[in-house]
Amino acid sequence: MVTSGAVGVGRQRLRYRKLVNSSFADLQKPQVELDGKACASVGQSGLMALYDMLFTQLDVSSSQLLVTDSDFENSKFRERLSETVESLLDLKVVPIFNENDAISTRKAPYEDSSGIFWDNDSLAGLLALELKADLLILLSDVDGLYSGPPSEPSSKIIHTYIKEKHHYEITFGDKSRVGRGGMTAKVKAAVLASNSGTPVVITSGFENQSILKVLQGAKIGTLFHKNASLWEPSKDVSAREMAVAARDCSRRLQNLSSEERKKILLDVADALEANEDLIRSENEADVAAAQDAGYEKPLVARLTIKSGKIASLAKSIRTLANMEDPINQILKKTEVADDLVLEKTSCPLGVLLIVFESRPDALVQIASLAIRSGNGLLLKGGKEAIRSNTILHKVITGAIPCNVGEKLIGLVTTRDEIADLLKLDDVIDLVIPRGSNKLVSQIKASTKIPVLGHADGICHVYIDKSADMDMAKRIVMDAKIDYPAACNAMETLLVHKDLLRTPDLDDILVALKTEGVDIYGGPIAHKALGFPKASSFHHEYSSMACTIEFVDDVQSAIDHIHCYGSAHTDCIITTDGKVAETFLQQVDSAAVFHNASTRFSDGARFGLGAEVGISTGRIHARGPVGVEGLLTTRWILRGRGQVVNGDKDVVYTHKSLPLQ
Amino acid sequence: MVTSGAVGVGRQRLRYRKLVNSSFADLQKPQVELDGKACASVGQSGLMALYDMLFTQLDVSSSQLLVTDSDFENSKFRERLSETVESLLDLKVVPIFNENDAISTRKAPYEDSSGIFWDNDSLAGLLALELKADLLILLSDVDGLYSGPPSEPSSKIIHTYIKEKHHYEITFGDKSRVGRGGMTAKVKAAVLASNSGTPVVITSGFENQSILKVLQGAKIGTLFHKNASLWEPSKDVSAREMAVAARDCSRRLQNLSSEERKKILLDVADALEANEDLIRSENEADVAAAQDAGYEKPLVARLTIKSGKIASLAKSIRTLANMEDPINQILKKTEVADDLVLEKTSCPLGVLLIVFESRPDALVQIASLAIRSGNGLLLKGGKEAIRSNTILHKVITGAIPCNVGEKLIGLVTTRDEIADLLKLDDVIDLVIPRGSNKLVSQIKASTKIPVLGHADGICHVYIDKSADMDMAKRIVMDAKIDYPAACNAMETLLVHKDLLRTPDLDDILVALKTEGVDIYGGPIAHKALGFPKASSFHHEYSSMACTIEFVDDVQSAIDHIHCYGSAHTDCIITTDGKVAETFLQQVDSAAVFHNASTRFSDGARFGLGAEVGISTGRIHARGPVGVEGLLTTRWILRGRGQVVNGDKDVVYTHKSLPLQ
Repeated sequence: MVTSGAVGVGRQRLRYRKLVNSSFADLQKPQVELDGKACASVGQSGLMALYDMLFTQLDVSSSQLLVTDSDFENSKFRERLSETVESLLDLKVVPIFNENDAISTRKAPYEDSSGIFWDNDSLAGLLALELKADLLILLSDVDGLYSGPPSEPSSKIIHTYIKEKHHYEITFGDKSRVGRGGMTAKVKAAVLASNSGTPVVITSGFENQSILKVLQGAKIGTLFHKNASLWEPSKDVSAREMAVAARDCSRRLQNLSSEERKKILLDVADALEANEDLIRSENEADVAAAQDAGYEKPLVARLTIKSGKIASLAKSIRTLANMEDPINQILKKTEVADDLVLEKTSCPLGVLLIVFESRPDALVQIASLAIRSGNGLLLKGGKEAIRSNTILHKVITGAIPCNVGEKLIGLVTTRDEIADLLKLDDVIDLVIPRGSNKLVSQIKASTKIPVLGHADGICHVYIDKSADMDMAKRIVMDAKIDYPAACNAMETLLVHKDLLRTPDLDDILVALKTEGVDIYGGPIAHKALGFPKASSFHHEYSSMACTIEFVDDVQSAIDHIHCYGSAHTDCIITTDGKVAETFLQQVDSAAVFHNASTRFSDGARFGLGAEVGISTGRIHARGPVGVEGLLTTRWILRGRGQVVNGDKDVVYTHKSLPLQ
Repeated sequence: MVTSGAVGVGRQRLRYRKLVNSSFADLQKPQVELDGKACASVGQSGLMALYDMLFTQLDVSSSQLLVTDSDFENSKFRERLSETVESLLDLKVVPIFNENDAISTRKAPYEDSSGIFWDNDSLAGLLALELKADLLILLSDVDGLYSGPPSEPSSKIIHTYIKEKHHYEITFGDKSRVGRGGMTAKVKAAVLASNSGTPVVITSGFENQSILKVLQGAKIGTLFHKNASLWEPSKDVSAREMAVAARDCSRRLQNLSSEERKKILLDVADALEANEDLIRSENEADVAAAQDAGYEKPLVARLTIKSGKIASLAKSIRTLANMEDPINQILKKTEVADDLVLEKTSCPLGVLLIVFESRPDALVQIASLAIRSGNGLLLKGGKEAIRSNTILHKVITGAIPCNVGEKLIGLVTTRDEIADLLKLDDVIDLVIPRGSNKLVSQIKASTKIPVLGHADGICHVYIDKSADMDMAKRIVMDAKIDYPAACNAMETLLVHKDLLRTPDLDDILVALKTEGVDIYGGPIAHKALGFPKASSFHHEYSSMACTIEFVDDVQSAIDHIHCYGSAHTDCIITTDGKVAETFLQQVDSAAVFHNASTRFSDGARFGLGAEVGISTGRIHARGPVGVEGLLTTRWILRGRGQVVNGDKDVVYTHKSLPLQ
């Protein structure tokens, strides 16, 4: 351990001592700055006492080793020093080094930077080499080395320093403010030490347990390694590079004609069919590995690419290819003024990041949607499907022509990379997680990129007193049982209070029980019918279970849904048109149904074609989302030289024009 | 100061001591747990040595005061204790209290909770009262008292504890996991102490400088005060309550008929006119105060509500009232199956938070837009316009009928509240900052709520070699000079290299110079024409300055814009239709113009009616945004009892129906 702080501690003490020893007359005189060496001498003992105390708390002994620059000129000293440190380490004693400022021949500590070492960073570097350290950690007040001043949003932390690549960048940043916290000195020491064979990590001393994290291999701070430039491709740059490449390719894709984009899709479909054997054998390997690893049956089923699946995927890609082109459509056309025509056109969002679990066929669907909509795509699949995803990715990108570039679709393979990608809110435009609620929540919590998805699906069915009870039974059973793990399955059954203890309602409850549904009760249902109490109304079972509660009327059903629901899909069953309309107009959820199962809340069933996902967010897209969720717009204005000039020169007409 | 830790420190030391003194035979026997009192006795001296060392670093002396429960039974002891502490404080010595565990009559520390105090929290509470402390700070390992387990996203920190309000909540949370970190004991001690007159703050000991922050009045941790329940309205609950109330009111507003919403707007217009004198006199007070405070002229000008302004605001509100209702419009209608009809309808986003600077008329425009679109609204204006905003808010909400509720529009008055509001991503749907780039960037950085706005407006004008140079001059001058501070003003002028040193280009440059525009050069322009070097191409001057650079052709202009622009508004000047289309199709910005000034990039000029803002985001809305940016959609499905049943029962037709 190399420590700083002796001069600071000493200066504090000496100031006090000086004050105490001064007469009032002394204090009238101009005060001379305290001698740095005296401060170091006084401070060193206090500093060591502090370390001793702190290490003693951990039942560790510490030792003091004060060295000067000139000591290192003596090769015998170097040998002896190594021996001394070895002995201390054998005894499990922590050696604490500092420059012996008080007796060094330097004029003043911290000012003279000549010699073999000149500050604690260079001393640390020197000692790392002398003592053949396995790793040198330099603690700073910032998280590591940044490409520019750390306070600027455009500055990015450099996780692996590569001289050829970062030297210019950093020199530039240095001139502005990277120097803060002595980063220049640290980088200099780190480059020297790493070039001589000791890897170095610069990280924050303020981050909780940063030393332990570095030792555990966490990607924090900046790593210096003499072979870093040979690592290929350096992982910490690849996330950003992947995203930027996908954006560049997507711009070229967008510039193709609609026919050319269509052709790519048809080529992808052909390539999938041509490589069916290869794809299925890779998939079989994944399936076998999953079975060996004891994965649950449903997961293995989702993982499996069944016979005929490739053909059906190819068929749906061809359907997509023949769809109307979703991009470069004119959505709105306005004559702003004479010969000044404004168009609002559809265009791709840019770069999408899709995180999906198991199902390798999702990769194919998403990739073809991205191609159709002109978007770049980064894909992260589950590790259980790695071989299937890799081959599918290879086959698909192989069909992308070079005038677009195969980097249009990137496959992300490690968890590390996904964390890096989620930070790239300047390059990635939308994240679409397709998987468990947990996955969606985790991603939402860890990124500033907009996320299209639904964390919760707490769907309600409300049976009004006027309901056709046969229909109610049919819908309730379907909403709960058709696919209990789906987000659009019923979680809470609300029932008009007049239906309590009626044979029709009892019939529904018995039917649920018979099918194996566990029924929990809200306070009223618990008391009246003795169902076990539900832990919370805001609960998604995602299994063969539901909550039941009684409400006074449609208004209290609506209030209940607003209070405890997740604004996904809610349904009323009633024959009373007025009550139905009240429910349909007032329930503030993405999808609101009258006399139809909540299970219809789905892109395919809604007729949206390919489904991108279901969104419970209110921004951009809501409910089941088709390809329009992957699009944004551009405004295109064509004039003949008009200027604004304080709005004096233009006569605005703002006339709506036909779209043709 | 009351400290813990003696037993822990002592146990660590004694374990080691015991090990050292054990024979191998001893170690074979079952090990007895160390005596807590012995641990406390050993640990207390080490603990005090540590405090002494740490305080000495700060040149402060500390003292040890060990007390037992029974001491406090003696009233003379209490008196003497106060006197002792007084003397210590007079000498600027920090008294450090701990229970004298080693000699207390308790059976074991930390287990016996009888007596006058029973742990360090209750000791702290007791001492606060005995010593008549001004404030008691209890440090925890969490940020304060939460409504539930701190790790759950639904748990909210309680900034001010109000017994009547929080007691139930916390008891509930306690049963799950709030107890962690000894929160129950802390709350008990805090309630006791605060009821007896010493305010208490529970906050994190891990947060940097938390004690200083509490003393500076920062809103961290949880405050306990005996009069807290009388404070009205308690500020820390009001942010959430305001947002929730706005949402409730907006739901009622949405349920009104279109005519009723129209009537509210007409009433608002009437109310503004009826209160014109009052509004103007309040505004004059703001203006006078701003002048006295030495605000800059443009700010004072923006602050002033000029004669005739109220009338013109009222007029524009009436225009808005007569517009087609933007909500409850059917945007898409599909027959999903026989008698199963799906509608996609427009509906309000929910609750908007608008942060605006100076212009009080913005409040009126935004409030009327919110009413028209059925949204709830929280407004935060600049403090220089506080009286104007307050009266405008009062007049407008006064015109909102009780069946909606005046809380539809909330006025936020303190900076504190805005920080709280930005955390409410579960209740607020969209933040629209209207003001400086700095304001927008700050807000984007500090919230998870989607932000509609533009941080940068680095707009380019590219003059192609085929440009009509008279037109180029007109457009360039307008784009830079019409309103240099606007986000749609030109910041970079790109010129085809063939135009270098042509009289027409020189003419444009001279004209810019003559108007007082400072011209900076990119590398080529700097070298060729001697303009001072621009610091960066990614720079928004927002003033009478711009960068000029030469490019090879339209493709390199496009690449330059993609590399350095901010995707706001970019313009090409050319007479070559093919070149123009290349630019229009490829430039990936919100607005792309051909032969028209960038200054047209504006909601009003685009004919969008009221402008909500200009978005450089790609999600939800892009470029100038009208009222559609305040809307989302709902899916409404009407059936006759259809169920999904594995898609076996339904014949999907997916027929598009007319919207009527």
